[in-house]
Order: sequence, then C-alpha cells, then structure tokens
Amino acid sequence: MSVDPYMRGRMTERKSYVPPFELGKALEGACVGKILESKNNQFPVGSYVLGISGWREYWVSDGSSGSGVSKIDPNMGPIQHFLGIFGMTGLTAYVGLLRIGQLKEGETVFVSAASGAVGSVVCQIAKIKSCYVIGSAGSEDKVKWLISDAGIDYAFNYKELKSDISTELVKAEYSKNGIDLYFDNVGGDHLEAALNHMKTFGRIVLCGMISQYNATSLTPGPSNIFLAITKRLRLQGFIVRDHYDMLNQFHADISKWVNEGKIKWKETIFEGLENAPKAFIALFNGENFGKTLVRIGPS
Amino acid sequence: MSVDPYMRGRMTERKSYVPPFELGKALEGACVGKILESKNNQFPVGSYVLGISGWREYWVSDGSSGSGVSKIDPNMGPIQHFLGIFGMTGLTAYVGLLRIGQLKEGETVFVSAASGAVGSVVCQIAKIKSCYVIGSAGSEDKVKWLISDAGIDYAFNYKELKSDISTELVKAEYSKNGIDLYFDNVGGDHLEAALNHMKTFGRIVLCGMISQYNATSLTPGPSNIFLAITKRLRLQGFIVRDHYDMLNQFHADISKWVNEGKIKWKETIFEGLENAPKAFIALFNGENFGKTLVRIGPS
Repeated sequence: MSVDPYMRGRMTERKSYVPPFELGKALEGACVGKILESKNNQFPVGSYVLGISGWREYWVSDGSSGSGVSKIDPNMGPIQHFLGIFGMTGLTAYVGLLRIGQLKEGETVFVSAASGAVGSVVCQIAKIKSCYVIGSAGSEDKVKWLISDAGIDYAFNYKELKSDISTELVKAEYSKNGIDLYFDNVGGDHLEAALNHMKTFGRIVLCGMISQYNATSLTPGPSNIFLAITKRLRLQGFIVRDHYDMLNQFHADISKWVNEGKIKWKETIFEGLENAPKAFIALFNGENFGKTLVRIGPS
Repeated sequence: MSVDPYMRGRMTERKSYVPPFELGKALEGACVGKILESKNNQFPVGSYVLGISGWREYWVSDGSSGSGVSKIDPNMGPIQHFLGIFGMTGLTAYVGLLRIGQLKEGETVFVSAASGAVGSVVCQIAKIKSCYVIGSAGSEDKVKWLISDAGIDYAFNYKELKSDISTELVKAEYSKNGIDLYFDNVGGDHLEAALNHMKTFGRIVLCGMISQYNATSLTPGPSNIFLAITKRLRLQGFIVRDHYDMLNQFHADISKWVNEGKIKWKETIFEGLENAPKAFIALFNGENFGKTLVRIGPS
C-alpha cells in the first residue's frame, strides 16, 4: 500500500475534494494486490490489481467499474511501481510540470521536497527537458542522491542551512537570473523564499504544502505575496485526479524514460500493516526517502 | 494629473518593474495637458496631449515617440478621462477581468476597493457580462453608490463590519455557492477571506494590494493559501503595460459602454499642485472616491 501526504488532510473534519476518514472505519488508500479467490472471470486467481482499499490485509471486491479495482501488468516492472512512478505519484509530477507549469526546455526550475516521491520525478523530468534544476531536501544523503543519481544541478539540505533558504537560492540561481518555475511540495518558508527569486512571468505550481499539514493553528502565508503582482507570477494549485486524460500520454513517456534509465526511483518500504502508522508519520518528519510503501502480504 | 496607488511602490528603494523615484527630482506620473508653445507641427498650440510628466506645472518635450507624449481627442469626452476610464485605469480593469481572469458570463465576482478607479470599472464590466457582483468599499456612501449607480448586487462597508469579511461573504454569495473570480485590489484580510469562499477552479486576479503598501514591516500573507491546492485555484498577478496590445479592442468596447450609459465614473479632483501630496495620501486612507486627480493648470 501507498502512504501519501494528502491522507493527512483526510484526518481533519472539513470539506475538501475527498471526504475525511471516519472514526471506527478502516482508512483508505491506493494499494496493489494479488487475487486470492475469484468468482469473476475478469480477475482470475493469481492476477494483480490496483485498488483503493489500502490500510487492511485483504479486501473483497466485485470488480465492477465503480469499485476502483483495475488489473495491472506485472511484466511492466515491480508491481509497487503502479503506486509510484507508473501511478498517481508519477502522473502528479508529469501533470504539474508540463500541464500546470507549462515547462519549457532550458528553464530554471526549483523543486522542494526534491527527493520525495513526486519531487524526485519532477526533478528528473525537468532534467530530461534540459532544464537547470535546483532541489531542496532534508538530509545530506538526500542531497547527495539528488546530485549523483537524479543528476540535478544544485541541491541543499534545508534543515542545516547556515542562513536561510533565500540565501541558498541566491547561490543556486546566481548565473540564471531567477527561477522560471517553482514546484511547491512544502509551502511555508520555501514558498516565501521562492517568491523572492522568481523571474518575471514565472509560474508556481502548488502541489503540496507538507510543512503545514500538522500545524495545529493557522500559520501565516508568504509575507511577500505582493511580488506576484510586480513579477506578474501565476500560482496555480492542482489535484491529479482532474487530469486523468493525460494518463496514456504519461504512460508512454514514463515507461520510455524509465527503460532508457533516465529516471531513477527510490522507495522506503515498511514491513507489515502494524507499521503503516509509522510509515505515515515518517512522511512528515522526513525519515522516508522517495516513495513510502508498506508491504502487507507476502511479496 | 493622475495619482495612483502604484506610485507608492516607487517611493521605496527596491528593484521593481519601474525604477524608484529619485530624491531631489520631480516625481513622475500620467497627466493630460494643453500645448502652450510649439515648434513642432505635429503638436500645434492649443492641442491636447497625454504625457508622463505629472507632478509639475508644465514641461517641455520634443514630441518624439520615446517622449511618452501622444495627442488626445478632446471631443471624445472630458480630457481627464484619458487618465481614467479611457486610459490606463480602464485598461487595467479590462485586461484584469477579461484576459487574466478569463471572466465568463454569469459568474460570481468579488471586487475589493470596488468604488475605486479600477474597482468601479471592474464591477460594471462584470455587470455588463451578466455576472453576480459583490463589492467591498470603505464607507456607507461608497456602498450606496455601488448599489444604486454602479448597479452591483451586494456591497458592504469593510470598515464597519459586525464580524469579519468572511462572514460578510457568506451572506453575499449564499445563493451562489462561492466566488468564481476575485479581483484583488487590497490584499491582506480581503485576499484571505476570498480564498475561503472561492469555488473549485476559481481565479484570483492580483491587481493591487493597497492594504500592504504603507506597511513598515512584513505583514503575514494569507494563512489559508493551501486552499489554492484543494480548490485548484489560479492566482495571477499582472501589470497593465504588458497588455497594450488590447488597447484598440478596449477603446472600442469602453467608448461604446460609456456612450450607452452602462458605465458610471466617479472622480475626486484636488485643486493645485500644492495639494498633490494630499491627493496621493487620500488614496491610502480612503478619502478619495473613484479616480483621484489633481488639476494643475486652468481647466
């Protein structure tokens, strides 16, 4: 099963694009599974499926189109890739960068949570598009991976800065005269620093604000939002499920890039349903690296 | 001459889309004037011009294309209209609403500083486009004018609220299920309240943030900016001078609407260059109503 930052929002009682989790009921989330018993010829025993009933050891489905269950091809790669690089995570990066961000070849791109599941794909698609890519991450290991494996141009550890993110961005974009596209997974001080360094007519893709999700009181927004006017910026939020029309195009591109070795992919796998809460909490304190998964059944 | 909120930004030493005013030199700004002496056949004595050398009683120009001087037709209306409804002010409203905001017929629109020079035109263009229009203004007189003269659907005095702007918007958009387009002239608490009431896929046009211009320290941005993600909002800043390509289309539309009596226009005129600072300050404490002008020469 996949654990994802958006699930935090479902733990708060409020109106949003998905209803909150309910007390006393199992949580939900994307998962891949193997058919153990079947009365449906479409899903023979032993075949693999993608589903939306994570956070439990097994589930029963009639396989109808509304059930959220679809078959996956285990020959395409490890089945858990359908939760990540081949799944919603990869599509989020793809849609955010290309459709919402309207990325152009050779631009300067800043990505926060750059070694995370979405961020790492964003970084590498931007590199494929010949961009200059700057990433922030929360440990020295992650920074090293971003440079050596993901191949981005500049990375920094935001948890151990001598001064602040803005100062780091001055160094990072020194030769580039600013950032064309900021892909925001973090919000807070990252968004504020990015605003300071955006080029005129830059775009800010609002994908997530993980720094805010556990806040118990309202936290101030960027004090420099006025720069959106003087720099004529566009800030745009999106949710991947509005963009499933790009799925075929995405699958064609991403499988090509993965096969060509142009996209590296990191996973942190926790073992057993009993460790799912731990896996989820790891998303927020940065103990994860790349995509966070929980292995429930035998692999 | 015209006094406009953007001039406040030029009184701060910082990099922006126009350079700061310089100490010891006359300020600059849009003005209309009459030719008193001429050695240029293109500009005979007695003709009227639009210029960029406000904040002084007269000026000398060679009339070349780089001089910022162009002839205006006094038969089109009062010459000061070229500083307002027929000029940059009107074009700002037009570009912001139609190009940046992509306004559609029948939408729900919220405008802050709604009785101001830009805001009042925004309100009335939105009404022409059959929209439901909500406006905020800073006095009872302005609220009355918005309803009875500008013909908008709901207006409130943000300086005398029983609770807060968000509560007022609940009442205003009650039957509309939210705001499709917020035209922001104010920033601060108006922007934060608007975010709470935007519809999914709504657009926020960032035109000005007059509540922030006199701030002597950084003021927090909207604490609910995260809603831009869950509601898939687009926030976009703009500067009118990037959009002069719309000038002909704007002139055709605006002169038609004004001739048909569909757009009412308010002016606050201060007399004499010595009162120009007072006129400018009035922009920020809300003593103005509609477009703020200073009459320098004899009319």
